[in-house]
Amino acid sequence: MNPKSLLTMKDLSNAEILDILNDAKAFNSSHSDWQIPVSSRKLTANLFFEPSTRTHFSFESAEYQLGLQAADLAPDSSSVTKGETLYDTCRTFESLGYGVLVIRHPQDEYFKELENVKIPIINAGDGKGNHPTQCLLDLLTMYNEFGHLDGLNVLICGDVAHSRVAASNKEALEKFGANVRFAGPKEWEREGYPFSDFDESIPWADVVIMLRIQRERGAKIDGMSDAEYLERYGLTLEREKKMKDHAIIMHPAPVNRGVEIDTNLVECERSRIFEQMKNGVLVRKAVLRRALGFAPFGRSEC
Amino acid sequence: MNPKSLLTMKDLSNAEILDILNDAKAFNSSHSDWQIPVSSRKLTANLFFEPSTRTHFSFESAEYQLGLQAADLAPDSSSVTKGETLYDTCRTFESLGYGVLVIRHPQDEYFKELENVKIPIINAGDGKGNHPTQCLLDLLTMYNEFGHLDGLNVLICGDVAHSRVAASNKEALEKFGANVRFAGPKEWEREGYPFSDFDESIPWADVVIMLRIQRERGAKIDGMSDAEYLERYGLTLEREKKMKDHAIIMHPAPVNRGVEIDTNLVECERSRIFEQMKNGVLVRKAVLRRALGFAPFGRSEC
Amino acid sequence: MNPKSLLTMKDLSNAEILDILNDAKAFNSSHSDWQIPVSSRKLTANLFFEPSTRTHFSFESAEYQLGLQAADLAPDSSSVTKGETLYDTCRTFESLGYGVLVIRHPQDEYFKELENVKIPIINAGDGKGNHPTQCLLDLLTMYNEFGHLDGLNVLICGDVAHSRVAASNKEALEKFGANVRFAGPKEWEREGYPFSDFDESIPWADVVIMLRIQRERGAKIDGMSDAEYLERYGLTLEREKKMKDHAIIMHPAPVNRGVEIDTNLVECERSRIFEQMKNGVLVRKAVLRRALGFAPFGRSEC
Repeated sequence: MNPKSLLTMKDLSNAEILDILNDAKAFNSSHSDWQIPVSSRKLTANLFFEPSTRTHFSFESAEYQLGLQAADLAPDSSSVTKGETLYDTCRTFESLGYGVLVIRHPQDEYFKELENVKIPIINAGDGKGNHPTQCLLDLLTMYNEFGHLDGLNVLICGDVAHSRVAASNKEALEKFGANVRFAGPKEWEREGYPFSDFDESIPWADVVIMLRIQRERGAKIDGMSDAEYLERYGLTLEREKKMKDHAIIMHPAPVNRGVEIDTNLVECERSRIFEQMKNGVLVRKAVLRRALGFAPFGRSEC
Repeated sequence: MNPKSLLTMKDLSNAEILDILNDAKAFNSSHSDWQIPVSSRKLTANLFFEPSTRTHFSFESAEYQLGLQAADLAPDSSSVTKGETLYDTCRTFESLGYGVLVIRHPQDEYFKELENVKIPIINAGDGKGNHPTQCLLDLLTMYNEFGHLDGLNVLICGDVAHSRVAASNKEALEKFGANVRFAGPKEWEREGYPFSDFDESIPWADVVIMLRIQRERGAKIDGMSDAEYLERYGLTLEREKKMKDHAIIMHPAPVNRGVEIDTNLVECERSRIFEQMKNGVLVRKAVLRRALGFAPFGRSEC
Repeated sequence: MNPKSLLTMKDLSNAEILDILNDAKAFNSSHSDWQIPVSSRKLTANLFFEPSTRTHFSFESAEYQLGLQAADLAPDSSSVTKGETLYDTCRTFESLGYGVLVIRHPQDEYFKELENVKIPIINAGDGKGNHPTQCLLDLLTMYNEFGHLDGLNVLICGDVAHSRVAASNKEALEKFGANVRFAGPKEWEREGYPFSDFDESIPWADVVIMLRIQRERGAKIDGMSDAEYLERYGLTLEREKKMKDHAIIMHPAPVNRGVEIDTNLVECERSRIFEQMKNGVLVRKAVLRRALGFAPFGRSEC
């Protein structure tokens, strides 16, 4: 496996995470026009074996901004329909001259079978497992907001059991000294995740992250209507009023309006939901830059 | 809504329409190599929620010719399948750094719910409603042919009831002083549209526009075969002979050969069907140029 | 039909084939950075009416490397779903400003109805018929390996009846003086193709080409398991040991691992399977270069 791959947050030391966050910030300020030098450009292949708007087009935006050409594999029109293994598909793209692979795949840790692929792989989501660039954009959003991560109180509410966001944020935030609590329906509690009462934790939080109900993965609470879910576990206008003055609202999106969150809060002053998307492009630019072998801006300038 | 959006022909004054037509003509002559200056280039997202070849790849051709990078959303592999609203999808693309949206969507006037999107939106067809770039290319085709629009006799025949082309051409042509008549099956007549006998109007027309039977939208005349339709309402070889010497044939395509029109007329001397497609790229270049904030060529050169 | 089209191997003289192979070799060495000069660049449309990974993304890689912009038609979201003929679709792309068409289509010799299309067409596979760029990459792989084609002993084994590879390789290899034998199940023998006993021919061959079982086209041997097929007609570890020292293994891919070939042989020292893919990009660059009207490197330098 190429060491410039990014598969899980565990692969990154705190220093490496900070390097990526700082590069992302640089892409938003002093280095907004930076592109990969022509001689170092590689063809990128975006292999999305599951539907995605945000992540897919965030990578595509990042690729174009960096000056990279991107090919998009639509699974339905590919040899995956002919039974080709993921490994053979990846080796194929490598042989065809592509230099970076961005992969989303429904299988947990699909990348374990890709060890002999030599070009860097960026994980854009594996099953219920990891989604490191989503985690990085969440960290960047909090980091931009508060200037630090340690000591932050982060409340994550919803479908914790099925959420890549819950798992990777918990791990990364705790590494940086943040305090993480969870809330949501009992059916979606998860071992090792400290659950709390949602209403009691709301005033405690600096950051409230509402998770998406992944209906397309079969997630549902038996017999509960959307309105009931919102009332019991969603971010209502009443709950928003109990948040700290400076506290912010996040959500990985796409949002189920009126279910996880009141539709009027999606673009309220506290909401960073669309800001998260902007930050997603910045961290993906940083991760792609790293994959192509460039040292962090700060360091390379030393 | 961004004022550089183009949603319906009604949004454009006659002067603005002429500006676009003149820019399109310039793209076919003195400005054929003109590209958006690098510093003004924006990422474009083509969001086609309905099948399309002509319009989709016409925009893509126009975008590439202008030097723009284009991302293509295939609805089946997007978060639309996860129930995301169109508004949230558009705000997402905006947040991801895309600077222009080209949208085709099955819902009439889908853009009414997009008022808070800040980047320009170009309507590439809404349900049975509007299709302004199709109308502009039709106008350009007649304008190129006759040098003027006022006083032209235009006969539009076929599925008038379901046709975006019939509606927007009627309105635009009448604004420019053209005379518009309709013909076709009684089942497809439309209130406010002056119907006439097809065979009587053929010798009157300078332009005969044959409409597509949109079978994919369920359009059909009960119990009528293709051959019968052609005989009664289609452009046959016999009818073509009764056209004025200088009169031309148009069709928005894709053509149902042998139904709306005899297959031998599709590329006959009078036919402007493929010329219309060429003109479509030119008007879309003009519309994209306008969306990115450039004044018309003529004016900017004053 | 544009004379720079490439539809079948029969269209090419031996001298033209060698020109393409030499250009492909040049793209791998002295001309690796060569791009189409900006003033000669054309938009390319990749029209794949059947699933494909290798061929599709090989062309896309070749196009990008040459500096060309590529549009991808996904049949499901195109007007093909509205019943448009292939001829009208191709004429449409021509009218829209595309300068080269790369087409894969399930119908044998689909290109026979495209004679009036003026821009070059590159056949990326027609039904059970032709796949000239696959043949050229196979020739290049053997040519690179042995420095010549005449006198080579080539053994092609498997689903000969349904294989575009078998047909076009037989013809081209014999034109260059190679000896071609076939092997495989009786059900898949083909008139005019000299069949032999697989095990007897293995030690005879310089090149063993294992064909893919095209299950997506309904190919199967009644009542035979994958393991049985491998044992009787596949390339097993035992058979590989009986190959000549310098003999190589080829396969058009995607591979059905453990059926046509033992999974451990896919990337063994003798295997050129992924090398074939690299060569595919090189020959497609040469074929695209030719389609855009450039003389072979050697000649143009004279």
